[in-house]
Amino acid sequence: MERLTGTGVSPGVGHGPAYLMGAAVPEPPAGSRHGGDVVAEVARAEAAVERVAADLSARGEAAGGEARDVLAAQAMIARDPVLSSEVADLINAGTAAERAVYEAFMRYHDMLAEIGGYLGERAADLADIRDRVIAELAGLRTGGLPEKGDTPYVLVARDLAPADTALLTKDVVAAFVTEQGGPTSHTAILARAMGVPAVVACAGATAIVNQTLVLVDGATGTVGLVPSEEEVAAAVEAARTRDSAVAAVTGPGATADGHPVALLANIGGPRDIETALEHGAEGVGLYRTEFLFLDRDTAPSEEEQEAAYREVISAFPGKPVVVRVLDAGADKPLGFLPPTEKEPNPALGARGIRIMRIFPDILAGQLRALARAAEGESAHVQVMAPMVATPEEAAWFVAACRAAGLRSSGVMVEVPAAALRAADLAPGVDFFSIGTNDLAQYAFGADREVSALAGFQDPWQPVLLDLVAMTASAGVPCGVCGEAGADPALACVLVGLGVGSLSMAAPALPWVRAALSRHTFDQCRAAAVAARAETTPDAARAAARAHLPALPDLGL
Amino acid sequence: MERLTGTGVSPGVGHGPAYLMGAAVPEPPAGSRHGGDVVAEVARAEAAVERVAADLSARGEAAGGEARDVLAAQAMIARDPVLSSEVADLINAGTAAERAVYEAFMRYHDMLAEIGGYLGERAADLADIRDRVIAELAGLRTGGLPEKGDTPYVLVARDLAPADTALLTKDVVAAFVTEQGGPTSHTAILARAMGVPAVVACAGATAIVNQTLVLVDGATGTVGLVPSEEEVAAAVEAARTRDSAVAAVTGPGATADGHPVALLANIGGPRDIETALEHGAEGVGLYRTEFLFLDRDTAPSEEEQEAAYREVISAFPGKPVVVRVLDAGADKPLGFLPPTEKEPNPALGARGIRIMRIFPDILAGQLRALARAAEGESAHVQVMAPMVATPEEAAWFVAACRAAGLRSSGVMVEVPAAALRAADLAPGVDFFSIGTNDLAQYAFGADREVSALAGFQDPWQPVLLDLVAMTASAGVPCGVCGEAGADPALACVLVGLGVGSLSMAAPALPWVRAALSRHTFDQCRAAAVAARAETTPDAARAAARAHLPALPDLGL
Repeated sequence: MERLTGTGVSPGVGHGPAYLMGAAVPEPPAGSRHGGDVVAEVARAEAAVERVAADLSARGEAAGGEARDVLAAQAMIARDPVLSSEVADLINAGTAAERAVYEAFMRYHDMLAEIGGYLGERAADLADIRDRVIAELAGLRTGGLPEKGDTPYVLVARDLAPADTALLTKDVVAAFVTEQGGPTSHTAILARAMGVPAVVACAGATAIVNQTLVLVDGATGTVGLVPSEEEVAAAVEAARTRDSAVAAVTGPGATADGHPVALLANIGGPRDIETALEHGAEGVGLYRTEFLFLDRDTAPSEEEQEAAYREVISAFPGKPVVVRVLDAGADKPLGFLPPTEKEPNPALGARGIRIMRIFPDILAGQLRALARAAEGESAHVQVMAPMVATPEEAAWFVAACRAAGLRSSGVMVEVPAAALRAADLAPGVDFFSIGTNDLAQYAFGADREVSALAGFQDPWQPVLLDLVAMTASAGVPCGVCGEAGADPALACVLVGLGVGSLSMAAPALPWVRAALSRHTFDQCRAAAVAARAETTPDAARAAARAHLPALPDLGL
Repeated sequence: MERLTGTGVSPGVGHGPAYLMGAAVPEPPAGSRHGGDVVAEVARAEAAVERVAADLSARGEAAGGEARDVLAAQAMIARDPVLSSEVADLINAGTAAERAVYEAFMRYHDMLAEIGGYLGERAADLADIRDRVIAELAGLRTGGLPEKGDTPYVLVARDLAPADTALLTKDVVAAFVTEQGGPTSHTAILARAMGVPAVVACAGATAIVNQTLVLVDGATGTVGLVPSEEEVAAAVEAARTRDSAVAAVTGPGATADGHPVALLANIGGPRDIETALEHGAEGVGLYRTEFLFLDRDTAPSEEEQEAAYREVISAFPGKPVVVRVLDAGADKPLGFLPPTEKEPNPALGARGIRIMRIFPDILAGQLRALARAAEGESAHVQVMAPMVATPEEAAWFVAACRAAGLRSSGVMVEVPAAALRAADLAPGVDFFSIGTNDLAQYAFGADREVSALAGFQDPWQPVLLDLVAMTASAGVPCGVCGEAGADPALACVLVGLGVGSLSMAAPALPWVRAALSRHTFDQCRAAAVAARAETTPDAARAAARAHLPALPDLGL
């Protein structure tokens, strides 16, 4: 079978017919004319526009948040009376509906594109809406995703956005393959959270013919095209053997010589508890609380918050549950707060603890709800703040936690200043939790969301290891809750750097547990030293692996 | 006299009548009606709209670049026929033009604001245009700046944007006072470049009554209101004494015990040569070349570039001229290149060397033009690349310089990764030049353009000093070309950290030269050690100053 190669970002083997998302809609031929029934043709065009507009609104409502506003605005553009009267005029003159839609939208599109500025941004929306209407008229499929069928499909795309994938589940998607994206792209994170194999940065992916049978290995990064039944069976069997070797390792995380490493789950709400427990999470290392605050017009009451927190806390008796307080900002605005200053770079803006200091009542309420939720429960509840950069911010947050009666308070280390000056932040702080994705983003000044800059997000960048080492050596217990910990080889390196707990999307936990169980703490330390001695991510990975000889046995 | 206090960011004393920029336009009273001549009133409204639209276009053309596109789009909104027909309808019903404009614009404004998303962004534009039209109708002044009068005025504003100040000169503005902004805000940089005193972060500034006489001390950060003639005379006299003490120090930059420190000028093109020479610049430490590339539809020819480069190079015989190659990106797009991917955070995007690697011909042409401009000149031409983050990028740039026949090539250190791993970047690189403003921005993950985050831009942040120390100790000659070097006390600290050259807006050079001449290298080193031992900028500044006893003699 023919093979494409990319970067494997979520282990496992998946196979099924390829479903290509967002395939281009061809331009309707110039001069194409309708049969002569102007009234019927106009009605056909209008019905198609209305279906597209309604679909956009519905998808927005389902996705919520910012996506809802964007999609509602698109629906409004689709229904613009200027456009529909132009379409009707063209149909009146004999043009077929598909071509009339194409020409009317293109005229407006070109005008906007030429103006540039704010209005110019709407040109891309128009092109997207145009394609949807034409596809609707021509009976083509576009946007959206196929209904659940008998067989799970392999979703192939240039790249995936959160709005594309909001409603996907494991019984519908067998694997992800994207042409762009990196180890920390949305696709990678989603795939690991779902436990579905994924290959990103796969050149040639979008040239795969729709419905072709595809075999995806998310560990090796290979995508086989039109495999034989035997090839599928062999790959599934190999994966099964590997999985059982991994599943055989149970119990608390530790190196081969017994150095303990707490293996925790990242969760986004109570619905993630089951997956965490299934994969042997020894607690929660990052409980994101945004889901309670986003997409609503009023702040959640403390009672509502307490109930949600207690649901998670009570599921982990005797175990750590690390809660990250609300991480809002210009990129994740809260409907019930006044809008913040318009920011040219939301990722560098008033977010995390910076916004809490503007609205301290929101934080105080959340901390009170957490303290009450912890009462009478045996879980060890710990609270941490995002985007802390200075000793003064750390002290302010610790004081707020103490005032609410919370005993263990820590800070996220996700800006380089916090890592470099971890020793200054340490006094009074109970723990550090390193967010490797943001830390890499700021260390390189390279947006984690821009696929052209994905190389800077490689968690093997030696400078990222330096920053982890600085944080871990500041005399405060230190965990990692970024995507870096989900890479079994890198997990060993982080442990070698002094990290005491690793938190990740739960499906990665068994792989990390197995990798740690096969290596000693000294091997981990040697791997860390070797990686930091290099100057590129590839060299660092190779140098570390040379000290971690059991990885190939696990198919890693 | 009553006094306001802020942060002095550009030394000197200035006085004159206050001119408040962007004072709010009052809402025309509800129910106000015109005299009865509908036709005249409609014509009056239309003329006002047209004048505002024409003014917006003209200001856009004068400012160029992105401002041109934004202002052209605003002019188009002002001329929207839907708005003008709504205004005419209201006037027909008896409403006065001012109120009709207010109501028509507000209706559209509220609709857009409610939609949110892309369209919502236009609401702020509409409010601005509305105010301009009403001011025009009411004979009020708004936006723009007063014509040059007999007396220079003190420009007072909430904050200043580049578009506000594009056309200001020293004979028009006696001083700047802003309520927001920090030491590296646009106002501060502009004021230092113009050699005009400035006070930023001045609480209460926008409550100053228009035309009030104001006395500004840009060294101490005080703003006196309605000073007596004697108070003005005393302040001017004190400033003169201080200025002569500073001016008495001449010759090459050095500490009191003769440790040499090259004192260089930041320039943006040939028009800045004169100011640089006047203030005793010993060469150019940062020659920004964007002016040749922005605001045009075709790339500048190598001949055109060569002429511009030679004009600067020939003005500094026997001296260093450090040229930064083109720094473009999504925030500074080039009209003659295909538009880049839309980026959510342009400051974290494909900018600097990242974009040159996509369009290597642009860089190759610039380097060839530089090599030819250096031929036959005695200046020591050095070339450096912005946003270098990895050894591989540094090596790529050095190779490109060598290929063009340039002998000295270096890299800007402006992302934390470059400072942390300066030793990895060093092989083959001839020099480092630290951009302190961007370095602080990325180290704290805090936008340098957002005034609410100005505290993170304080160049006395101890972690910034750590990053400078790491860079300066990598075994390669190291300069600083950010705003930090323009603070005389901090300049001494940077020298103590191992920095060998300081480049700044030329008017700050005499102050830095004087400060260095009064302290020994050991004092500078002691000041640096003391500053780094602290955990906050204020404590670092105080600790350093305790080792720099001659600063108060210079009024610093």
